Amino acid sequence: MHTILILGGGKSAIFLIDFLAESCQTKDRKLILADINLASAQKKLRNQLNTEARQLDIEDAGARQSLIKEADVVISMLPAFMHPLVAKDCLQFGKHFFSASYESEEMREMKVEIEAKGLFFLNECGLDPGIDHMSAMQIIDFIKSKGEEITSFKSFCGGLLAPDSEDNPWKYKFTWNPRNVVLAGQGTSRYIEKGDLKFVPYHQLFNRLETIQFPGLGDFDGYPNRDSLSYRKVYGLENISTMLRGTLRRDGYCKAWNVFVQLGMCDDSFQMNLPEGTTLRQFLNSFLPYDPALSVEEKLGSLIPDFDFPTWEKIQWLGFFGNDLLPKTTGSPAAILQAILEKNWKLYPEDKDMIVMQHLFEIKSSEGIKEIRSSLVCVGEDSTYTAMAKTVGLPLAIAVDLFLDEKIHLKGLHLPVLPEIYNPILAALKSHGISFREEVRII
Amino acid sequence: MHTILILGGGKSAIFLIDFLAESCQTKDRKLILADINLASAQKKLRNQLNTEARQLDIEDAGARQSLIKEADVVISMLPAFMHPLVAKDCLQFGKHFFSASYESEEMREMKVEIEAKGLFFLNECGLDPGIDHMSAMQIIDFIKSKGEEITSFKSFCGGLLAPDSEDNPWKYKFTWNPRNVVLAGQGTSRYIEKGDLKFVPYHQLFNRLETIQFPGLGDFDGYPNRDSLSYRKVYGLENISTMLRGTLRRDGYCKAWNVFVQLGMCDDSFQMNLPEGTTLRQFLNSFLPYDPALSVEEKLGSLIPDFDFPTWEKIQWLGFFGNDLLPKTTGSPAAILQAILEKNWKLYPEDKDMIVMQHLFEIKSSEGIKEIRSSLVCVGEDSTYTAMAKTVGLPLAIAVDLFLDEKIHLKGLHLPVLPEIYNPILAALKSHGISFREEVRII
Repeated sequence: MHTILILGGGKSAIFLIDFLAESCQTKDRKLILADINLASAQKKLRNQLNTEARQLDIEDAGARQSLIKEADVVISMLPAFMHPLVAKDCLQFGKHFFSASYESEEMREMKVEIEAKGLFFLNECGLDPGIDHMSAMQIIDFIKSKGEEITSFKSFCGGLLAPDSEDNPWKYKFTWNPRNVVLAGQGTSRYIEKGDLKFVPYHQLFNRLETIQFPGLGDFDGYPNRDSLSYRKVYGLENISTMLRGTLRRDGYCKAWNVFVQLGMCDDSFQMNLPEGTTLRQFLNSFLPYDPALSVEEKLGSLIPDFDFPTWEKIQWLGFFGNDLLPKTTGSPAAILQAILEKNWKLYPEDKDMIVMQHLFEIKSSEGIKEIRSSLVCVGEDSTYTAMAKTVGLPLAIAVDLFLDEKIHLKGLHLPVLPEIYNPILAALKSHGISFREEVRII
Repeated sequence: MHTILILGGGKSAIFLIDFLAESCQTKDRKLILADINLASAQKKLRNQLNTEARQLDIEDAGARQSLIKEADVVISMLPAFMHPLVAKDCLQFGKHFFSASYESEEMREMKVEIEAKGLFFLNECGLDPGIDHMSAMQIIDFIKSKGEEITSFKSFCGGLLAPDSEDNPWKYKFTWNPRNVVLAGQGTSRYIEKGDLKFVPYHQLFNRLETIQFPGLGDFDGYPNRDSLSYRKVYGLENISTMLRGTLRRDGYCKAWNVFVQLGMCDDSFQMNLPEGTTLRQFLNSFLPYDPALSVEEKLGSLIPDFDFPTWEKIQWLGFFGNDLLPKTTGSPAAILQAILEKNWKLYPEDKDMIVMQHLFEIKSSEGIKEIRSSLVCVGEDSTYTAMAKTVGLPLAIAVDLFLDEKIHLKGLHLPVLPEIYNPILAALKSHGISFREEVRII
């Protein structure tokens, strides 16, 4: 009998837990779900056979390690910075390790030892990173097998709202970590286009948009996301002339979000200490020049180039021109902005989220230049069974299931970029309704 | 006999060394100048009586400490991050400590022990910080002594070129640490204007200009510099409604510099690894969007709002539109930009630099609202005897001289904001030609 240990049973673990708990009903397995909140873990397991909830404070090394000793396979759904801690325990006690987070430098340092101990460590096996790698590599390997050359690869992903739930001017609510949404895109984004290296500072990022279309869903804004250059190696596309990974938002969102960026309101580098009783209007004004002859609206209008009505409406809808009190007066600008947005971008129980992902390839083939557009759309059921939780959790659950069923035989430290990993996972995802629609045209 | 130890005999120490070496000819003193480069230190001391050059690698704790043990007073002209190291040695061996750098948090942690040992530690006694504090506090204390209220205080300083040496379109050359010039203004600047707190992100900073005039010298651009709010406490102006400290550049400089900021070329947060043979034009293009229909010039023109001829001319003069090779192809964007500027903004031996500083006060007095404009202009002699070296080094030298002559009796950790410190130093500076011109008008 195999024991699976899930560390952390947060919002995005619901599909993962359900899938693996269900597998324990038919296969010779046991699932332990450990969380800081025992009652919450118990509720998620619903007293199913061969499942067990445990209370765990992850900082308690003794408790953590004795739990890990009980398991064969450990899945970390903890915040990313905790993964190396758990991975080290797994290495020490000879347990396999799975996560949906980016493979860190610390993880890479364990590579040799993971191999020496014959263990399997799989990271980046969620949505993005995860499904993006797997679906892209399936196409890339297929194209290469035909001897064709990929000249351009652009890939976009977004965690958004289903059209029915787009009931505010931003067409956006928080469907995942609000802090990550507020800080999204910080740093310098890097990509290559037609052989030209491109570097985009944060304050230019939300101007550097590309329109991405999904059949039946209309237009989205795509902006470059972090370091696309490093993916040339990951995907075996070292000599490609265009490589860009991007983030999707509904059309119009980026232009309005850029107002916050231009003002400096997403800055997380210093603490504000505003007087009690500061209003949203005053908060906005603190990022604008002093000019007694102009209103806040006029100053904003002259600071932001091409400040159109749809943008205005979004800022206004959040209450920035009114005299409501700030929800908090201390913290970084980003933390105060987050608090304002959390009041307005709350997901209602009946709201449905939506994951959109699209790969765009240009290929030199014997038939001419070929374009492939491969699109994924996944709509959530409600605010608990979200598309985000499904697309993050299922790939990971399926990977563990396949591994325990000995359908994945690999050892060592891996990303899901090998056919042996991505083929069976993508096939299983398809049977759960997660599949790409592929359009090909010769130009 | 007192022994003065100067650690670090760099470019900006020349007036400091000359002043203190000369004082050793008439007073019962000895000067030791310790530098990594012995020959350079010897050259600066010119075999004067009671002076001695020593070779010192500051990282060599044993050598450093045995040198500090020989001294009564230690002056650190080392890079700012090394001051705490030296200050700790001074504390251990009971030596007085002087620097022209900002008082650090580590320095503040030594406060109680400095007092307990009866030592005198003086920081921020150069130009800016230094002369700015002293000249401002002299005015502030005088106004307060008359029972008048200061409602506004703006203070600007710049290290620039004398008008005769302004022979390029930027009217600028490096007269101090080039890296600091390239990174100037990074972070979020904070000030208060008419009671409104103001926060300016870096990418807006070079738009937030104020025109500052110096009699006979014309117009300068002033932009807010870092955290002006913290100076309310330092200057005893807790309830002031306008408080701004700023940096001066020649008019037009900021608008052109803003091009680099907008492009992301001052970014020091990541390493570029550009192909060998990359030209300045290609470097510029890497920060611009891809658009095969537009030239680099056209793309830049559409990215930068209001891209006028004087701005164009400055960028063009540096060679950015041409095909010269980059002086280096690896390093942060800021490091590569610095290398380009160092080729073009080199101070010639006969060039003269210029320090400009201006304090602007608004005061509620019995005569009505009074404005005080207090201006300092200091022109260098040549590229060795610069105004920068003079205004940084002389205040420090004079402070040490006064302290050894027992004309400053303080103990403990200090900034030069007390009359006992600033009055004699300002008087001595005046006799060296460093003095403010004050204009008062009632409005």
